[in-house]
Amino acid sequence: MPRDPRYDVLFQPLKIGPKTMKNRFYQAPHASGFSGDFYPRSEARFREIKAEGGWAVINTSGLSVHPEYDCWGGAETHSRLWDDDDARNWSLTVEAVHRHGALIGAELITIGGASGYESRLPSRAVSGTVHDSFWTGATYVMDKHDIRELQRSYVDAARRARSAGFDIINFAAMQGATVPLMFMMKYFNQRTDEYGGSFENRARFALETLEQLRQAVGDSCAITCRFAADTLHGTDQGIRVDEEGAAFIALADPLVDFWDVCIGGETLAFWPKDTGPSRHFQENFQWKWVERVRPHTAKPLVVVGRLTSPDTMVELIRSGKVDIIGAARTTIADPYFPRKIDEGRIDEIRECIGCNVCNAHYGSGGRIICTQNAVAGEEYRRGWHPEHFHKASNHERSVLVVGAGPAGLECAVVLAERGMQQIHLVEAAGDVGGHLNWVAELPGMSAWRRVVDYRVMKLSKLKAVKVVTHTRLSADDVLAYGAQIVVMATGSHWSREGWNRIDRTSIPGADANLPHVLTPDQIMLENKPIPGERLLIYDCEGYFMGGTLAEKLARAGHRVTLVTPFAGVGPIMDGTGENLFLVPQLNQLGVKVFGSHLVRCIGERTVTGYWSVAPDAPVEWAVDGVILITSRVPEEAVYQELRRRPEALKKNGIEAVYRIGDCLAPRLYVADAVFDGHRLGREIDTTKPAVPLPYLRERPTLDAPSGRPTSNPVR
Amino acid sequence: MPRDPRYDVLFQPLKIGPKTMKNRFYQAPHASGFSGDFYPRSEARFREIKAEGGWAVINTSGLSVHPEYDCWGGAETHSRLWDDDDARNWSLTVEAVHRHGALIGAELITIGGASGYESRLPSRAVSGTVHDSFWTGATYVMDKHDIRELQRSYVDAARRARSAGFDIINFAAMQGATVPLMFMMKYFNQRTDEYGGSFENRARFALETLEQLRQAVGDSCAITCRFAADTLHGTDQGIRVDEEGAAFIALADPLVDFWDVCIGGETLAFWPKDTGPSRHFQENFQWKWVERVRPHTAKPLVVVGRLTSPDTMVELIRSGKVDIIGAARTTIADPYFPRKIDEGRIDEIRECIGCNVCNAHYGSGGRIICTQNAVAGEEYRRGWHPEHFHKASNHERSVLVVGAGPAGLECAVVLAERGMQQIHLVEAAGDVGGHLNWVAELPGMSAWRRVVDYRVMKLSKLKAVKVVTHTRLSADDVLAYGAQIVVMATGSHWSREGWNRIDRTSIPGADANLPHVLTPDQIMLENKPIPGERLLIYDCEGYFMGGTLAEKLARAGHRVTLVTPFAGVGPIMDGTGENLFLVPQLNQLGVKVFGSHLVRCIGERTVTGYWSVAPDAPVEWAVDGVILITSRVPEEAVYQELRRRPEALKKNGIEAVYRIGDCLAPRLYVADAVFDGHRLGREIDTTKPAVPLPYLRERPTLDAPSGRPTSNPVR
Repeated sequence: MPRDPRYDVLFQPLKIGPKTMKNRFYQAPHASGFSGDFYPRSEARFREIKAEGGWAVINTSGLSVHPEYDCWGGAETHSRLWDDDDARNWSLTVEAVHRHGALIGAELITIGGASGYESRLPSRAVSGTVHDSFWTGATYVMDKHDIRELQRSYVDAARRARSAGFDIINFAAMQGATVPLMFMMKYFNQRTDEYGGSFENRARFALETLEQLRQAVGDSCAITCRFAADTLHGTDQGIRVDEEGAAFIALADPLVDFWDVCIGGETLAFWPKDTGPSRHFQENFQWKWVERVRPHTAKPLVVVGRLTSPDTMVELIRSGKVDIIGAARTTIADPYFPRKIDEGRIDEIRECIGCNVCNAHYGSGGRIICTQNAVAGEEYRRGWHPEHFHKASNHERSVLVVGAGPAGLECAVVLAERGMQQIHLVEAAGDVGGHLNWVAELPGMSAWRRVVDYRVMKLSKLKAVKVVTHTRLSADDVLAYGAQIVVMATGSHWSREGWNRIDRTSIPGADANLPHVLTPDQIMLENKPIPGERLLIYDCEGYFMGGTLAEKLARAGHRVTLVTPFAGVGPIMDGTGENLFLVPQLNQLGVKVFGSHLVRCIGERTVTGYWSVAPDAPVEWAVDGVILITSRVPEEAVYQELRRRPEALKKNGIEAVYRIGDCLAPRLYVADAVFDGHRLGREIDTTKPAVPLPYLRERPTLDAPSGRPTSNPVR
Repeated sequence: MPRDPRYDVLFQPLKIGPKTMKNRFYQAPHASGFSGDFYPRSEARFREIKAEGGWAVINTSGLSVHPEYDCWGGAETHSRLWDDDDARNWSLTVEAVHRHGALIGAELITIGGASGYESRLPSRAVSGTVHDSFWTGATYVMDKHDIRELQRSYVDAARRARSAGFDIINFAAMQGATVPLMFMMKYFNQRTDEYGGSFENRARFALETLEQLRQAVGDSCAITCRFAADTLHGTDQGIRVDEEGAAFIALADPLVDFWDVCIGGETLAFWPKDTGPSRHFQENFQWKWVERVRPHTAKPLVVVGRLTSPDTMVELIRSGKVDIIGAARTTIADPYFPRKIDEGRIDEIRECIGCNVCNAHYGSGGRIICTQNAVAGEEYRRGWHPEHFHKASNHERSVLVVGAGPAGLECAVVLAERGMQQIHLVEAAGDVGGHLNWVAELPGMSAWRRVVDYRVMKLSKLKAVKVVTHTRLSADDVLAYGAQIVVMATGSHWSREGWNRIDRTSIPGADANLPHVLTPDQIMLENKPIPGERLLIYDCEGYFMGGTLAEKLARAGHRVTLVTPFAGVGPIMDGTGENLFLVPQLNQLGVKVFGSHLVRCIGERTVTGYWSVAPDAPVEWAVDGVILITSRVPEEAVYQELRRRPEALKKNGIEAVYRIGDCLAPRLYVADAVFDGHRLGREIDTTKPAVPLPYLRERPTLDAPSGRPTSNPVR
């Protein structure tokens, strides 16, 4: 289909210095957990597919310009442009992006006032005292010689980037953890020389460095600055858009070819104000600051803010206030976003749900994952492509998928994409979606429904899938169904006995058949009555359920006590950035949080437990009801019965029975349930589909190029 | 010097199955943070030097046998024997160890009842529910087919190990996070088939697997089991040495060639009961369990327990109850431990101080570091050797080292080792040692004095160093001293104004000139009187000082409140394992801990602050005195004055002034201050000694062997 002309404005080319963007879609810098210097092949393929999907500019993650700024341990450690070998590894990504006519930007960064976790080097700081977010490091105040040396490191890195083929040098002055912004912020800058004091002085480091970058590579590379135009301090300790923000933009405007502005990040701990989770931030949440940047610059301007709607994007460009649509999470959820608009397939866009597991997962040393896009992070190592599917060699087989939650839905879609001719997706409930249907009803969680919406849209186009609802299948029903391949995706339920990973057994008195003991499914799905005012939530899971139910029930007027063996409210939400907003919210709602506490026994009016530090001193809570968020139990009875009846399977022509998603093993992340369904769909025609194929692993090798297929199956 | 014959017993060879240990020194399995499959060159050189230093057996860290057990994110992720390429990378370590006549063992492990952080595979579990320490993962209960497959993975890994040249297969059934031990523990095993129930049933998985390993590789490899002979549960939920421990050893005795027993680890969270920090565990702390193992086995037996004294080791062997001296931390602090005994240089041993930063550092994604051995982890990438030094090309220069704390001491020692002919080490205090002299007086910290003791011993042998105490040098004194190279190592002091990384300024009312405001140095060094009963400690540092002073003062009868912006008591001590014992101790001593709280203002009888979640609600503490552990300030005045007087330096023949240790940048870890002094000593004759030389970085490259010297200087 041709492009709807109302989106034409998004596809106008734009000159940025010596380069030209082919359209207005700009992948803002974001980390992936496998930066191109360390996992070059994974990085290259991850970014390439976005270029292929139509983004005019792809940026790297922040590339450290000097070993003093080696960031913290774990995966993010590896994002560097320290030497020619790093540049060489990155050139693989550069070439991959160029193949599709996109430009690529290198974000040059000095993150952390202190770090040295790998290099063991103390790092140069603007003023004394280590950085709040890098407190294990060591710093020394830089003198003018140190400043010159650091600026030379920027220039060296830019030269390396240019020789690797980068088109854009993106100078990061964002978040109060990058040296250029730390110079600008009074909070970090207590200098008394010409780099401290007045804002002109505080901006000097950034201005000088930008000038040096321009001089060194500005003839052949576009220069931009990723600038936190408002750090949301609200005081003169940070950057306020109408004051320091405007001032810097005016001062630096001649030095950049366009502005890559972002908002938030008074220190690194406040990153979720920039990468706002959908629970607490609407689409386009940065706009109210960005529009105030316009008067101060004559250069093209980027806007970001979890933009997922092409219509909003058109409006923004039409307003004349911004020129470029920036996005990070949207590019992860759907690398083909621009192309789908261009090809008139706007309804096929896979919208980011703003859950931020991408960040939580690579932030804790893993790879990037995505709830909506099961392929994210798997492009190289599993050879998957989010939009391309090979025809299954067993495509003439009929498949029955039992259960239409996230895993079952995804599996059915992938099987259909792979050309399986007959797929029945059978769901016990009245609607497809599984537990997401009620999860999306929790406060702030409505964007999660997009996981279901996208797949429902796909099913409406993929005619091979027949959806059957209101139908609960027993093992006998499955046997009699007539399918050759059976995929059990029946999900899980919350334990009704308080089964938990600490006691590894049930909790005395925990019996959700009683009126005063409840599980999340009973509340949300079965409308079990809440027994009184005072409620205790026991959260052994550590993600969103505990805190979110607490919010819901407190809003409904209950007095809620949240008890958890974790240090505080669901620690996964530290990684997703949700806790930054949710925890103060719970506090305001009067929710009492008992971190590092465990429940030992549940009575009708009293719950007894203990503080982990003092197991012998009982703690008592007087309550009217208890909500058990202790663990989930697979709905596997039908699967296990089928496994026990191999003869019956054979007799009924069933060649294989698989289980996916929570039915196999309850997953913390919806992303992993979706992945599991996707994985089985991709591998439905291998010798042993139940066992995932080995994947390519990038590692240094002794004498051979790395990344070869593992020579033994991983089995 | 020849070996003292009383140590001969430690050097008797011992047959273990098809192999022979050349002596009784056994490097028990321990992680390094750069496992040989991922950083093969770093690993090989790290282990090689231990082999060279006389250890008869070197073990790897735990090598995962299957991608389902890929452990957590970060550095420890990379410890695998999944395929032939892993084995190939490990073979570099094997060859390096063999070069010195030592044997090498591969510890085969399935750690984590759940993980899949990289592979995205749910993992097989003994019974339902994820593991307490791996709660982000997903598990499914294994059926018999799954058990067979997992056992086959063990065998496959053992075969790979054998072809890589490994001599010993070490089957890990330790800590309640390895599948074999989880089968054995009632706590984890709720199975009703022949793998659950009776102890014989629960031991079946381990016994079968050991038998399979023996059959597959037992002819050419020695087989051992790293067995937690007592998990310290104290109930039938775990392993008790006289019951389940004895039973398993009796059952498995025919299947192993020796026993590598360890104690503790009811679940992974309790690892510090095995790797006991010196604060809470005496040398040889595992003995009382290990000696009870003896009656149940006819095979050679390993004992571990932070053994650092050769005399204790002799006693243990002489007792006839054990045959092999196992050690991990001792091998890190002094890889040449056996050789020094063998060569009659027992006084030159560098004893482990039991601080456990080795573990804390690689455990959070960094490399291994060691307080005593600055070379640990640097062997490959910086080309250093703990016992070998090149003669400095500028050895005829005279050097003045100002300050004899850990950095200054280490630097003077290394300079002397490098043949510098004239080194003066000048200290203001009456003794060398710097702040360690009073730190070692804090409760439980006495082993830290070994850092000073070792260097004092070295100085007594290295005649080029003249130690001058009781002498505080001004800038003029330094200028007039007559040295050609000056190294300032004057350390740091605790801020007397409450300067901290959160406010990035002083705290109103924080003035340690007042009687009710104190710093650690004032208490420990200046004997400033403690002003009353109720004390508030404000800890913004996050390591040992806050909790340890709290312990000291509470023991002295004070009512102590510990306020900290961290979630709880010094989070670094989670990594070192100290908090597991310290926090309950503080609780028993009545210390009140306010985590996530910040101090805003200090009055004479009241401290005001707030909970970070609710900054607008003031919290008040009524106290008689406040102890500021907010940040350390470099003692850099003399250094800065010297820098400002280049002409005077020139006139006085001073060619260079360097600063190291806390004088440059206060370090959280003593290890990093020692490293800094060591580094300068190693590089005193480079073109620019102030700037560390680049180091080799192992990373995958596109078409060349990795680990080449970086082609650009790192600076």
